[in-house]
Amino acid sequence: MKRTAFFISDGTGITAETLGNSLLAQFGHVEFERITIPYVGDELSVRDAVAQINKAAKVDGSTPIIFDTIVNQHIREEIANADGFMMDVFATFLKPLEAVLETGSSYSVGKSHSIVDDQSYKVRIDAVNFALDNDDGARTRYYDKADVVLIGVSRSGKTPTCLYLALQFGIKAANYPLTEDDLDDVQMPKPLKAHRQKLFGLSIEAERLSAIRTERKSNSKYASLSQCESEVRGAEAIYNRFKIPYLNSTHASVEEISTRILAETNIERRLQ
Amino acid sequence: MKRTAFFISDGTGITAETLGNSLLAQFGHVEFERITIPYVGDELSVRDAVAQINKAAKVDGSTPIIFDTIVNQHIREEIANADGFMMDVFATFLKPLEAVLETGSSYSVGKSHSIVDDQSYKVRIDAVNFALDNDDGARTRYYDKADVVLIGVSRSGKTPTCLYLALQFGIKAANYPLTEDDLDDVQMPKPLKAHRQKLFGLSIEAERLSAIRTERKSNSKYASLSQCESEVRGAEAIYNRFKIPYLNSTHASVEEISTRILAETNIERRLQ
Repeated sequence: MKRTAFFISDGTGITAETLGNSLLAQFGHVEFERITIPYVGDELSVRDAVAQINKAAKVDGSTPIIFDTIVNQHIREEIANADGFMMDVFATFLKPLEAVLETGSSYSVGKSHSIVDDQSYKVRIDAVNFALDNDDGARTRYYDKADVVLIGVSRSGKTPTCLYLALQFGIKAANYPLTEDDLDDVQMPKPLKAHRQKLFGLSIEAERLSAIRTERKSNSKYASLSQCESEVRGAEAIYNRFKIPYLNSTHASVEEISTRILAETNIERRLQ
Repeated sequence: MKRTAFFISDGTGITAETLGNSLLAQFGHVEFERITIPYVGDELSVRDAVAQINKAAKVDGSTPIIFDTIVNQHIREEIANADGFMMDVFATFLKPLEAVLETGSSYSVGKSHSIVDDQSYKVRIDAVNFALDNDDGARTRYYDKADVVLIGVSRSGKTPTCLYLALQFGIKAANYPLTEDDLDDVQMPKPLKAHRQKLFGLSIEAERLSAIRTERKSNSKYASLSQCESEVRGAEAIYNRFKIPYLNSTHASVEEISTRILAETNIERRLQ
């Protein structure tokens, strides 16, 4: 039986989605259709949301699940009257929080993802620009400004990780590709020598790397399993020889790689 | 009085953080120190987390708040015994979810941010590469492959938005800068003519734009208020003339801009 899950918010919907997806992931055997309805702030959008919920209930023949982070009580009540089962995030958690903090909450709309101040906006944009400007070894002379320099063979996941670190945490992350010369000789690339304490390595299973590279250039030496095996072996030899912390990105999402790097180093977030 | 808020997880900690930050944002008058402890999976890391909580309680002279998404019950109990007030996300929501879904949950560790399958990994990486390759009008001949083409004056927020759309939703977003020639004549740039239905405009208040540009090039014509005013006016004239949907990015975070674009268009997410 199919179930529809709604993520409804008067803001971006990101909190409702993130929480909801975490919870739904615990029901791996149930098939969910996911529908996010953000910016539900007026009568028209509420009525539209209610109509979507009621329609899903009818079509599915089962009760839709609703994860909501709606501040306005009147809107919450209208959503609660739809044919769905409502997991009301704010109603559930704000009361106990108010009790322990011994103060009322402002219950303000969509506050969590607004720009807090110009400073944090700047930190984030600077970090994104840094990641773009210092991607793939394009420029190496600003590594003294980097919080971390990711290294690894081509297609090991360096670029998306740097961008995620920048957007999510405001961290200035550069990345540098290990080339065949470095790998064959198990040597530290010259531009990295002065920044050894900032290096973090990515590794990956050769089979997976070969599959990823095949998407890009099929039937190439670059994508061949033997080439990938040799490069991965060389990269790990460099990490071990120079005691560079590293992790295997094969079965990890960008979120996991990024948060693991933070957990295993002393890099400080520039954004909270 | 300062409060410490802990986000503790056996996974990335992203769910605990996202939910916790949304809730704490409702207490704008309370000063929180935020500490994320991800990957709490063994005795050593549990003991370390408990020690951090107890220390914060002592230093602050107030009860720390704990948002946790820990699956392992034994670990949850140890955290619950620390000197903190625990908002136990899974314990709170999984029971009612199991009831309405009429099935047990697998309660599996850190599942929400793992790679679900190779296909979704590929979608995401392809989108990131697309955003990088088609940034800032660098290349315009692949706009037929784009889900959306953001347009706007320099520094109106196009690039971070494209990267966020790619990482978060797997959406292929290109961006194209409106130049003075286009703005002065209120004309549609030639490379965009064939893709009018994909265009989305970003606008921004001239004062804010001037401040952002001053960070980059102070005392330049580029950053001057009069130049910014003229460019913004020209951009909005283009949006209005050609009926291009647009939004004002001035007070919006990258998350807000991205989710508003999705809400106001028919662009479909490629990642759920």
